[in-house]
Amino acid sequence: MSDDLWLEEIKWDEKGLVPAIAQEASSGKVLMVAWMNKESLLLTAEEGYATYWSRSRQKLWKKGEESGHRQKVLELRLDCDADVVLMLVEQAGGIACHTGRHNCFFRRFKDGQWVVADPVLKDPGEIYRSSTDE
Amino acid sequence: MSDDLWLEEIKWDEKGLVPAIAQEASSGKVLMVAWMNKESLLLTAEEGYATYWSRSRQKLWKKGEESGHRQKVLELRLDCDADVVLMLVEQAGGIACHTGRHNCFFRRFKDGQWVVADPVLKDPGEIYRSSTDE
Repeated sequence: MSDDLWLEEIKWDEKGLVPAIAQEASSGKVLMVAWMNKESLLLTAEEGYATYWSRSRQKLWKKGEESGHRQKVLELRLDCDADVVLMLVEQAGGIACHTGRHNCFFRRFKDGQWVVADPVLKDPGEIYRSSTDE
Repeated sequence: MSDDLWLEEIKWDEKGLVPAIAQEASSGKVLMVAWMNKESLLLTAEEGYATYWSRSRQKLWKKGEESGHRQKVLELRLDCDADVVLMLVEQAGGIACHTGRHNCFFRRFKDGQWVVADPVLKDPGEIYRSSTDE
């Protein structure tokens, strides 16, 4: 039981979730933000690869299970309020986003609009064989 | 009305909020994550300084208003799901966290525990004259 104290320290929201940021260790780029429940964070810590909780599918989401774009976790951090997790990761394939881009923050605010600022590196149709990963 | 289309594109959660990440442009460090509602994001874009929505105080929170630790927004980005905002900022005073640390992610997971890994740079009592900023 005492082994799970670190999980109890986290302030899970009313749905039992916290936001988890994946930041690429090599580039410093923020790759994506998804959600974790207790089980997914435990798996992430145990296996050393990011596992999220998919809110849309309501199930564990082992990032890269289908696409191969796994995220190896080099460092795991918690913020002062204990309600956000930050991971420093190695991004397999150099692609974190289901759109085939390096990261999910590819839209930049400019002149009152969100403008696509980063290129698609790989056709999503080539990344996913059947269903989508995200 | 059409001026606010960029705000309408955002998928606000059931409370009308999205998480907003402040990342330091110069160091690449993730400084903090807080929440924004429509009004706070509009103010952030208009003024060029981060304004959040304080969930605990249920009011607009102009970051640094008391502490002076304002965040000048150099770039504003939106993720693929349109439900997380990323800001590249200049952090005044080099301190983002109300604990007096550079950033809020100062606890690192090590051997089954969250271990404080970053130093306090300034006594919070010196930062805040009366109430707390966060």
